[in-house]
Amino acid sequence: MLAYTDTGAYMKIGLSENKKEMRAIWFDGSEVKMIDQRKLPGDLVIVGFKDHKDVAMAIKNMTVRGAPSIGAAAAYGMALAALSGKDLKEAAAVIKAARPTANDLFYAVDLMLDGLKERRADPVKMADDYAQMIIDKCIKIGEYGSELIKNGDVIMTHCNAGALATVDVGTALAPIRKAHYSGKKIFVFVSETRPMLQGMRLTAWELLQEGIPHSIMTDSASGHFMRKGVNMIIVGADRVAANGDFANKIGTYEKAVLANELKIPFYVAAPVSTFDFNTADGSKIQIEERSQDEVTEFGKMMVAPVGSSAVNPSFDVTPARYVTGFITEKGILKPLEIHRMR
Amino acid sequence: MLAYTDTGAYMKIGLSENKKEMRAIWFDGSEVKMIDQRKLPGDLVIVGFKDHKDVAMAIKNMTVRGAPSIGAAAAYGMALAALSGKDLKEAAAVIKAARPTANDLFYAVDLMLDGLKERRADPVKMADDYAQMIIDKCIKIGEYGSELIKNGDVIMTHCNAGALATVDVGTALAPIRKAHYSGKKIFVFVSETRPMLQGMRLTAWELLQEGIPHSIMTDSASGHFMRKGVNMIIVGADRVAANGDFANKIGTYEKAVLANELKIPFYVAAPVSTFDFNTADGSKIQIEERSQDEVTEFGKMMVAPVGSSAVNPSFDVTPARYVTGFITEKGILKPLEIHRMR
Repeated sequence: MLAYTDTGAYMKIGLSENKKEMRAIWFDGSEVKMIDQRKLPGDLVIVGFKDHKDVAMAIKNMTVRGAPSIGAAAAYGMALAALSGKDLKEAAAVIKAARPTANDLFYAVDLMLDGLKERRADPVKMADDYAQMIIDKCIKIGEYGSELIKNGDVIMTHCNAGALATVDVGTALAPIRKAHYSGKKIFVFVSETRPMLQGMRLTAWELLQEGIPHSIMTDSASGHFMRKGVNMIIVGADRVAANGDFANKIGTYEKAVLANELKIPFYVAAPVSTFDFNTADGSKIQIEERSQDEVTEFGKMMVAPVGSSAVNPSFDVTPARYVTGFITEKGILKPLEIHRMR
Repeated sequence: MLAYTDTGAYMKIGLSENKKEMRAIWFDGSEVKMIDQRKLPGDLVIVGFKDHKDVAMAIKNMTVRGAPSIGAAAAYGMALAALSGKDLKEAAAVIKAARPTANDLFYAVDLMLDGLKERRADPVKMADDYAQMIIDKCIKIGEYGSELIKNGDVIMTHCNAGALATVDVGTALAPIRKAHYSGKKIFVFVSETRPMLQGMRLTAWELLQEGIPHSIMTDSASGHFMRKGVNMIIVGADRVAANGDFANKIGTYEKAVLANELKIPFYVAAPVSTFDFNTADGSKIQIEERSQDEVTEFGKMMVAPVGSSAVNPSFDVTPARYVTGFITEKGILKPLEIHRMR
């Protein structure tokens, strides 16, 4: 675990009376260590891997999730392969096959492959640098974004765009963390995020560890509470198209339309690397359709009638016109300004 | 069980190869019988009660739910009390105490109390008439509403405003049943309706029994599928204020705003008795706040972090301006026309 100097932005985890700063993933001695996100919030389990194939499996089975965290896991996986003298091209193929969607996975593996061509490269330092780069961007996002937050604000978020998803600090949660540690009194509404409940399980857990006041609500209650009084919405993004349309967890589009109707500012917190200038607009973004069991079963128990089917798109696309601004490490951009980052 | 002549509108339940028409609640010999809605869709369990106190308990513990079905259960409970020579005022008090919100409960009990003053009144016939009155209204709602549905339409609904909630036929599901049995090919999106999953458990079950094509989706996916192509939304209502604002299951407001944004007709199916002319507008409707455990637990297992709290409003209020029309037993009314029903 790296030492931190600024205690404001980083994820804190309460172990009885002591709070300990912890990342979602890090390198320790000879192992990649990570929080098993499948076990949260019930249990805080740290798992360690010495073989890149085990890291690939951890990505596949969602021990680690969130595109930036997946990228960091991939980088550390490549470092493990290099340390033990494995064939790097083979290792790269194994790790890339773990999940199909997150661009960060492919980007991180290729970056490591390229860097490791240098004979004197230190694989662990390279992966550490990659992880630190993500965190540095998140800290910047937190600084820019927190300036939008006033004392007393009620903020709504969706899914988990927190430290768990981005090695540390988070994207949507970065401005919230920063505002909280700057002494602003804020309150956060967390929508539970069906079907996988990342909001209820992970975002609420992060906020609880930091002592940030919050309430969980069903996704359907978003509009009700927005109408009662929410000052801003902050969500993450999985991909932003060239025109500012963006894909994020299913349910994001609804919140954007409601925010627009109710004149509530709607912000998307994401590093510039999320902008995909090769995708002209949102209609070109492919939406992953996941297993209907995620909807119809709870803990392996069937809740839906046997014979009814469910549809389970994992993401939706929100048109750029609903976005008040993109909070990036380069500052806050209006949808029409993002082409500048090309 | 009463015999039906028109086989189009009524709830059918598949028992192996045979379909059997069945109500949510009825009188049989000396017992009130009802489908135990807590056991659906896993098990179809019919329970019978001979004592009005047991009927009150069945209302309280949600063996029977849905305001009109609760009203019918209350009427049959009063009939049981009358048949066994119980003190009717005491019985009325016990039944009224079962649940606080549904106006139908109080209305049905008072109607029975009043009618039973007549010496020659037949208590069971009175309760049967009350239940039949509900069904007759639903059939009318189905007839008027189905005229709005075109062959090939994709319809979205929320929660359960079906036969289970209204003795038989349903309110929001009545036009859907009628359109289906008129030979129109339709497809229904059912939002699961967190936290209690009445959409996934009950509406999908009703549609499955009738062979009406449908898919379950998470509540958050409504906007995504509306954008892809939904022709109309039909929901029920728990209370309609004098100006046309209405309360219904949490999540209804969001669908109304989305429908308005996407120019999708948004209909509310409800009998005229749901109109409350003593409530000027939606801001006067009190919203029931239910236990946070309904959100944070699945089958008694805690999913949220211990220490995080949840908010759980059971209903939201949708402003009249989002309503295309109210489908009632008297015809289809625009929000500005409902005062005619006063």
